[in-house]
Amino acid sequence: MADSVKDGNRGGIGSPGVKAYVYLIFYLQPIVLPYGLTFMSTFKIDNVSYSINGERVFLYSGEFHYFRVPKKDWRKRLDLWKEAGGNCVATYIPWVVHELSEGDIRFGDESYRDLEGFIEVVKEAGLFLIARPGPYSYTELINSGLPTWLVNDYPNILAKRIDGSLIASDAVSYLHPQFLDRVATWYDAVCPLIAKNTINRGGPIIMTQFDNELCGVQVWRGSMDYNPEAMGFGSEDGRFASWLAKRYESVSELNEAHEALYASFGQAKPLSDAAEGSCGRLRSKRDYFDFYTHTISEYALWLTRAMRERDIDTNFVHNSGNPGMNSFFVEMCRALGDNFLLGSDHYYNLDQTWSQNSPTPQWAIGMFQSSETLRLMGYPPTVFELPGGSLSDWPPITAHDVKACTMTNIALGVKGVNYYIFTGGPNPPGTGWTADDYDYGAAISSGGEIRALYHAEKEVGLFLRENQWLAHAHQATDFAVGLDFEQARAENYGSSTDIQVSGSDAYQFLRTGVLTTAFCAGWSPTFVDLSAREWMSDQSLPIYIAGADSMSRDTQHRLVEFLRSGGKIVIGPVLPTLDERFTKCTLLSEFLGVGPSEKATGPVRLTFADLANVSNTGTVYFPKSAPDESEVLGVDEFSGRPVAWSRKFSSGGEAIILGFRWLHGKREHCAMLSKLLLHLGSKKIIRSSNPNVWCVVRTTGQKSMLFALNLSSSDMETEVEIDIGPNSDVISLGKLLVESGSVLTVGL
Amino acid sequence: MADSVKDGNRGGIGSPGVKAYVYLIFYLQPIVLPYGLTFMSTFKIDNVSYSINGERVFLYSGEFHYFRVPKKDWRKRLDLWKEAGGNCVATYIPWVVHELSEGDIRFGDESYRDLEGFIEVVKEAGLFLIARPGPYSYTELINSGLPTWLVNDYPNILAKRIDGSLIASDAVSYLHPQFLDRVATWYDAVCPLIAKNTINRGGPIIMTQFDNELCGVQVWRGSMDYNPEAMGFGSEDGRFASWLAKRYESVSELNEAHEALYASFGQAKPLSDAAEGSCGRLRSKRDYFDFYTHTISEYALWLTRAMRERDIDTNFVHNSGNPGMNSFFVEMCRALGDNFLLGSDHYYNLDQTWSQNSPTPQWAIGMFQSSETLRLMGYPPTVFELPGGSLSDWPPITAHDVKACTMTNIALGVKGVNYYIFTGGPNPPGTGWTADDYDYGAAISSGGEIRALYHAEKEVGLFLRENQWLAHAHQATDFAVGLDFEQARAENYGSSTDIQVSGSDAYQFLRTGVLTTAFCAGWSPTFVDLSAREWMSDQSLPIYIAGADSMSRDTQHRLVEFLRSGGKIVIGPVLPTLDERFTKCTLLSEFLGVGPSEKATGPVRLTFADLANVSNTGTVYFPKSAPDESEVLGVDEFSGRPVAWSRKFSSGGEAIILGFRWLHGKREHCAMLSKLLLHLGSKKIIRSSNPNVWCVVRTTGQKSMLFALNLSSSDMETEVEIDIGPNSDVISLGKLLVESGSVLTVGL
Repeated sequence: MADSVKDGNRGGIGSPGVKAYVYLIFYLQPIVLPYGLTFMSTFKIDNVSYSINGERVFLYSGEFHYFRVPKKDWRKRLDLWKEAGGNCVATYIPWVVHELSEGDIRFGDESYRDLEGFIEVVKEAGLFLIARPGPYSYTELINSGLPTWLVNDYPNILAKRIDGSLIASDAVSYLHPQFLDRVATWYDAVCPLIAKNTINRGGPIIMTQFDNELCGVQVWRGSMDYNPEAMGFGSEDGRFASWLAKRYESVSELNEAHEALYASFGQAKPLSDAAEGSCGRLRSKRDYFDFYTHTISEYALWLTRAMRERDIDTNFVHNSGNPGMNSFFVEMCRALGDNFLLGSDHYYNLDQTWSQNSPTPQWAIGMFQSSETLRLMGYPPTVFELPGGSLSDWPPITAHDVKACTMTNIALGVKGVNYYIFTGGPNPPGTGWTADDYDYGAAISSGGEIRALYHAEKEVGLFLRENQWLAHAHQATDFAVGLDFEQARAENYGSSTDIQVSGSDAYQFLRTGVLTTAFCAGWSPTFVDLSAREWMSDQSLPIYIAGADSMSRDTQHRLVEFLRSGGKIVIGPVLPTLDERFTKCTLLSEFLGVGPSEKATGPVRLTFADLANVSNTGTVYFPKSAPDESEVLGVDEFSGRPVAWSRKFSSGGEAIILGFRWLHGKREHCAMLSKLLLHLGSKKIIRSSNPNVWCVVRTTGQKSMLFALNLSSSDMETEVEIDIGPNSDVISLGKLLVESGSVLTVGL
Repeated sequence: MADSVKDGNRGGIGSPGVKAYVYLIFYLQPIVLPYGLTFMSTFKIDNVSYSINGERVFLYSGEFHYFRVPKKDWRKRLDLWKEAGGNCVATYIPWVVHELSEGDIRFGDESYRDLEGFIEVVKEAGLFLIARPGPYSYTELINSGLPTWLVNDYPNILAKRIDGSLIASDAVSYLHPQFLDRVATWYDAVCPLIAKNTINRGGPIIMTQFDNELCGVQVWRGSMDYNPEAMGFGSEDGRFASWLAKRYESVSELNEAHEALYASFGQAKPLSDAAEGSCGRLRSKRDYFDFYTHTISEYALWLTRAMRERDIDTNFVHNSGNPGMNSFFVEMCRALGDNFLLGSDHYYNLDQTWSQNSPTPQWAIGMFQSSETLRLMGYPPTVFELPGGSLSDWPPITAHDVKACTMTNIALGVKGVNYYIFTGGPNPPGTGWTADDYDYGAAISSGGEIRALYHAEKEVGLFLRENQWLAHAHQATDFAVGLDFEQARAENYGSSTDIQVSGSDAYQFLRTGVLTTAFCAGWSPTFVDLSAREWMSDQSLPIYIAGADSMSRDTQHRLVEFLRSGGKIVIGPVLPTLDERFTKCTLLSEFLGVGPSEKATGPVRLTFADLANVSNTGTVYFPKSAPDESEVLGVDEFSGRPVAWSRKFSSGGEAIILGFRWLHGKREHCAMLSKLLLHLGSKKIIRSSNPNVWCVVRTTGQKSMLFALNLSSSDMETEVEIDIGPNSDVISLGKLLVESGSVLTVGL
């Protein structure tokens, strides 16, 4: 572990104590060697990477559905995946395929239900297996993979909107007792088949996924769940009342927060009567979102306990439906602890309505946020569903694009991927939702034909095999970006008219402003978790913080402490004036000697140092009173008022307050960010002459590699120089040609 | 004109009479030939193309701002454009640059205000000029190009939201008398400079644009204009009351429509008190949108009359801000008549928030809709702003992408383009909005450097010069798509809860379903204007109609007539039950013998002929009673109810009713559309083996060319066969390789 990542021990979502740095999960599996020999294999996960037999490796997995791929082709196609560099496959075990009518659960009567036969073949092929037994599987099956009898015969279990209407005919309320009873029966049947084939017991199964893309079946159809039975509305010992009673010490405290007049916790409603747009309404909405994610955590606990009780001894995993949902699972990750790993799904297109048809830089920023978030949560960043085709035949997912997509993920820190899907086949009779043939445009066609996509996946597989050291490499970095998990969740509950810059605004600015400018300017940001303390000890890197009106009291306190002890930050467009409960808290701004800010009402001409007319989004905030003891770095030329200033402390600490945000688009933005970071003493690692080629260096300290990403649709040239360590010389790579939609790697 | 386009005389937005087929506008200009000779040039516009000296040509123009490009570089850069194949340049004449304080209007005191000098140099360079004197110019100048004194000193002229608040600090109410007075003064100064340099008077100016992207400054900021003074609310002789009195014969008729209780027209409000979601509310919203576009038409009439009074004798033009806005200008086009030409702006990216960074197929469908709409309006489709750079430095507009963009437009029927911009320079002092240097990433940089983009534009210029015959080519077509202008406008006023499929839903389905499937399947659709009568005489092509709940009584009548006389149509997902005023009208469905439809509530498994499980958007409509005398073509397997059926008439006419819509994505969609069209006797022109290469044939009858569009990010191969005429042999082109993001042309 000597060469583990520098930031490896920053993790742990604001856990109060110190998170165990390495949690070891050893399993043994007999591996079949080419010449027929077997030996016991070990499988391990820590916060750096996966390890097999003590060697850090990438998890290179492909989704492979025994219920679709014809049985006669299982081995042949598994071998193809292994030849492509794969070390694992994953499969759903769809409830709808196996429980035909209530209680009639079948395995093996048809070849498409022969789960055990499949597990055996996977083992023979020398691959690992991730089992995904639901309850939900989605996977373009009817009822999102739930049995039809279940959704038809148990209407009470369906999730509801706040007005009592159904969200969708196949969206259940996860904690409804009738639903959990049926899940228990399903688990009684399916879990033993998994349990006896885990790596501990000589089988190939290394991880078990519960459910699928939790919340998706509800929120993607427009609503969180408000099923009154499952959520327990209107009763003092109901789930909702109990949760509120934990959050608020008294009913009067709740009333104050929600601007309500409840006589008891049991009377509280999911949405208070407070005026639309008020802070009371905002708190009430935020509380319901927090309660909702708490119920998800409770459901996950129920499922994992149910699986443990049925002897499944693997690590549990779950896949967030997309990077934007990673933050839904903060409570869940805390509740499930060290035997759990959260991954994410990183699609770029599933039909023509998506924002892009191929990997774009805007998409890549989202993947970077996801990868960094998972790393800060303490996991080796893993993509449990990476495009290996699409549920739509058009727009196409091409070999060229998939290679760029996977290499981008690797460049941005991902340590494991599972292509969704590696190969498909006909859906079991009557179960197909989007089509009867689930070909998916995958690497191996429904009929077994090898497509160009296969060769692309193989190229990546061979790259990973040749560069296994990347599994324990980290990203070389020259500035930090503060991640506030609350900001990442804030778009789910909105804002209030009393708020100038919401958490959601700030989080969006981080992506479309700070991070995009950073990559265009050749800077190498990495994230720090503002809700933890680990980052505070490292004063070598300045931290960029997207400021919103609210920031938790503890985080404000930590920032003050950081500045007092010599740390350096940039913060804007506003300083927080509220704490995490949206009540007044001006700890940080008082320390900085800055009063509240007011939004510019007319046009502003923003000049920063010698950069005239820096484009902004029209959201500029001036300090109401001129900041004391500050050096003004930027002004509005029209009014002469300061828009950027610096406050230095005797400790050597420094805060730059930047009273505006921007949508990255102009070369002035690159110049401005560079001036800011250089002012704060940051040393730039990469110099690239073309803002359209985004450069990332991954390094173990001993070995390093440049990834040059060109996610535009045109070929690009760039001149690159690298300056990694304090003692090393600048490496000049000369002019690099990076083809359109591709990632070029250069060993350093 | 013998070889003019087949569909050339279909045009004319539902004009009651017959539109003049060719409106001739002849102008004479002395053209400087390379060896110093001059002769009088003619310039002509008709509904097929532009013509110079009697020869049909493409208008190949580049935006060139005398107020930005240094004067010393004017001639050099104009020559570069001419060398690139350009025959025209365009320039704004920004009010903000010339009227420094009220009444202080300057030309020529600074080189960046030397409009006349510029016109002279353009003439010397042998190029035509499009003059764009505002009032608005936008062009990334402060106040969208209006003088600061104007927006500061005349607060009453600003446009307002319905709640009385300002839309933006620089959005004026177009018809406000104080604003028009100031425009008159500006026109007094600027128009004579244009007038004396028109082609009729020996100058280079062939067209004059009034204003810029009308409505954009209001609706892009979130609202139509409700300025009470300009709109004349609350008074019997106010604009709004007068307009309503023309639309409704009596106040009681208005009250019935708006579900209101007004005592007089003057009492009517922009939004009636009718219940949210009711048809009364919908009618009231639609009426306000119609009134709003009527005021735009009135403004355009005022501007063009003001320019004529000031002796400008050129054709007038205007640029719709984007394809979605073309339909805003239906009234305006009718009001301005034959001396006017509407074009559109066809951008694909101006900053990172756009849907795509490069031309994509989804974008191309929008451009096709735009080009066809402009053609049906009676104009040679013209793009007055085509990307020649971007106001953002990032994402980049590359040479490769611009070539694909322009060639796509040409493939889809565009006959004239103006790159925005060809070259830029520093903004006049204090006028820049996005930056001080307006480099724009253009073909020729701010400093005069020739970029790769220039060579791309030159390649296209040379292609156009070599293939001038394309100016009078039309698209070979094998089925028609019915354009209902009302559907194209419907997203501006929404829907009501009583409506199953709104006009906006139908219009979206046309784009994301019918047209996308058509191009993927190798069909060659062209539009017909359902509000006119021209298409009715041509029964050779079946017409696909996206059915909404409402369709004008006249159009329903025309469709009945068309079917009675042997025409063939496909219509769905519903048949109209309402007329253009949302009152009951079942002319068409009664003729087809089909009662009202009802939406499927549960899951549907849709089978069409031998295609099982055709994916749909979940919006399936069954006939309430089984259709009489019909052949069922598709059923829901679960309920057994028909979802597609055909009704034949003794005339040979046939209607297929398809009770569902789809988002194109599956190969089954291609197969289904092909079955439908072949069933109706259509003969397919193009067979292409790859759905990702979209093929279009343009032909004069004598000469033809295939355009193969690959707007994906990967190279594509396709095998192509062409079968153009009834007597010609099938032309096999073998396997074509089309590079990513490019358009391949093959002469046939």
